[in-house]
Amino acid sequence: MRFEVTATDGAARRGQLTTGHGVVDTPVFMPVGTQATVKALTPEDLEAAGAQIVLGNTYHLLLRPGPDVVRDLGGLHRFMGWRGAILTDSGGFQVFSLAKIRKISDDGVEFRAPLDGATRFLSPESVVDIQRALGADVTMPLDECLAYPATREATERSLALTLRWAERARAAHAAGDGGQALFGIVQGGSYEDLRAEAVERTVALGFDGYAIGGMAVGEPKPTMVDLTARVAAALPADRPRYLMGVGKPEDLVESVACGVDMFDCVLPTRNARNGQAFTSTGPVTIKQARWTREAAALDAACDCYTCRTFSRGYLRHLFVSEELLAYRLLTLHNVRFYLRLMATMREAIAARTFDAFRRAFFSRYVLSSDRVC
Amino acid sequence: MRFEVTATDGAARRGQLTTGHGVVDTPVFMPVGTQATVKALTPEDLEAAGAQIVLGNTYHLLLRPGPDVVRDLGGLHRFMGWRGAILTDSGGFQVFSLAKIRKISDDGVEFRAPLDGATRFLSPESVVDIQRALGADVTMPLDECLAYPATREATERSLALTLRWAERARAAHAAGDGGQALFGIVQGGSYEDLRAEAVERTVALGFDGYAIGGMAVGEPKPTMVDLTARVAAALPADRPRYLMGVGKPEDLVESVACGVDMFDCVLPTRNARNGQAFTSTGPVTIKQARWTREAAALDAACDCYTCRTFSRGYLRHLFVSEELLAYRLLTLHNVRFYLRLMATMREAIAARTFDAFRRAFFSRYVLSSDRVC
Repeated sequence: MRFEVTATDGAARRGQLTTGHGVVDTPVFMPVGTQATVKALTPEDLEAAGAQIVLGNTYHLLLRPGPDVVRDLGGLHRFMGWRGAILTDSGGFQVFSLAKIRKISDDGVEFRAPLDGATRFLSPESVVDIQRALGADVTMPLDECLAYPATREATERSLALTLRWAERARAAHAAGDGGQALFGIVQGGSYEDLRAEAVERTVALGFDGYAIGGMAVGEPKPTMVDLTARVAAALPADRPRYLMGVGKPEDLVESVACGVDMFDCVLPTRNARNGQAFTSTGPVTIKQARWTREAAALDAACDCYTCRTFSRGYLRHLFVSEELLAYRLLTLHNVRFYLRLMATMREAIAARTFDAFRRAFFSRYVLSSDRVC
Repeated sequence: MRFEVTATDGAARRGQLTTGHGVVDTPVFMPVGTQATVKALTPEDLEAAGAQIVLGNTYHLLLRPGPDVVRDLGGLHRFMGWRGAILTDSGGFQVFSLAKIRKISDDGVEFRAPLDGATRFLSPESVVDIQRALGADVTMPLDECLAYPATREATERSLALTLRWAERARAAHAAGDGGQALFGIVQGGSYEDLRAEAVERTVALGFDGYAIGGMAVGEPKPTMVDLTARVAAALPADRPRYLMGVGKPEDLVESVACGVDMFDCVLPTRNARNGQAFTSTGPVTIKQARWTREAAALDAACDCYTCRTFSRGYLRHLFVSEELLAYRLLTLHNVRFYLRLMATMREAIAARTFDAFRRAFFSRYVLSSDRVC
């Protein structure tokens, strides 16, 4: 994997990540393909929407169908028919938020799998092995994710564990064939000095890129933006920076301004299935009765198939009728909206007009909830 | 609407139905788009699968979003983004099978609508009006659908009512602008002489085409095939013949052999959502554990996106994971399978090799249940 910054505008950067499955233009948003599918979309849809990289969830794929099945069917790319790049997470976030934890030790984490109730164990080494079987282009090391708020003492203990696991992941990864990149994850909760220490010690280990973990877990938005800015500024300029699990369109704009290069989030896909469409003037709740006879498209500024073909009235009808096509068409639009937003930001950075873009964005985009930052 | 028979082979016919929304090659299968959507598919998918006409359900569209909403949003074609032809049914079958009937009289049928509990009334005239608002290319008159078995006396009474309603529908339709075709529906239950009488009296009224109703409602398969053959043979050769609600792939082959031109059925779409795929060697139940590591496509003989792109192992994973993409990919395949089957039959008729095709089909196609006929 190679990474090159091709333009900057303030702290915002435009770049290119070159993987074994194509070039990824950054800043980039990665649609989430939890169970080897971006829900409701085909690889063809994703390509048409402009996706260059998607995220797969190691935790879910471990439970079903299992990494051995994916490997036997040619690896995750071939399994899901996706020609672009894939980043897999470590499963840590899901284990700590979805599974019933049995025991955490230096060795790893033991948990009860929701599907079959079986006891499973993840170690820094096994997480590297699983992602190797999946064949992702970019992989992540096992880390501990604390809920917000956490005491300083708990955060210190957790950070130390994450750093020991990072070192072991690094060693296990080095034993591979070099075909996969491994990112480090910067934890440290909401404590500025712990975040600074995490940056220093993670960078000292040396990774292909750096992720900012433990954000968007319930902390106030000013804390998130402030910490993101500080961490991003402290990370090496020649490596990609990935803000995990973020976020809303406004979060992407603010974080790109801080110098973040990569994002993933379930919002565009999950909210689509809940009937929320992101548009250039803000989120739209499609089930509202006001759209019943609305002949206009979801977003006049959008070039996606949904917006080119259907009225809000039809989309509302599909959604209130619980038709499968509703979830698909809204997902297609939301993913295209996110990817177009990223493309617009890349162009603004290259043209050195990012500040103007940012002001224009916030002047027309009505936020779905109070904007704190 | 014009109809022309372009080739025959035995009783089987190949033809062309010319509508205001394109030419329909017969024999044709019409995917069912109950609520203004063929479940899980876009109009683009349907075009790619080779669909030239789809069916819309008047009953469902009456309840939601209502014919006035569809009309205000440009009619059913524009509403659902479908450029091809549309046939709408009369709603009779659904009223008699899904709704709680309050009262049947010469005037029409009063029922309680499932969605809001409101009392609704359908008359032969209102059914014509609703389909006019929807803007279908081919419309159907209100008929009474009896459950099987029914006594001769009940069937006689019902047939008489259907014929009186047909005459009124004919008159109401004649008051329109002529842009829509109206078919007659031949009822008469499982009684040969009543079916013969139904043909004679329906044809005497004069319609653009003729449907065979009340089949596939629980009667034994030999009864269905025998009656279909007799009714089809008695209908005018210069009008399209439409066997409503049929059927399985083997039923289509047998009915085309009887001289039927048009079909509709929820099987390819509904069974897809239940995990059953139709293939050239018979139905496949995708959730079976035997497919877990199967790298082969669903149907090696199929050219659909699903078969060109994914393994049975991946489709099984999607289905057991209850992923939306599973329903979409299986629906896409099943619809293409049905449409390809019809295309193959049209070619066989034109080449006068229909008998050889039929033998070859049954030699490789393993039926999903005991084949009676």
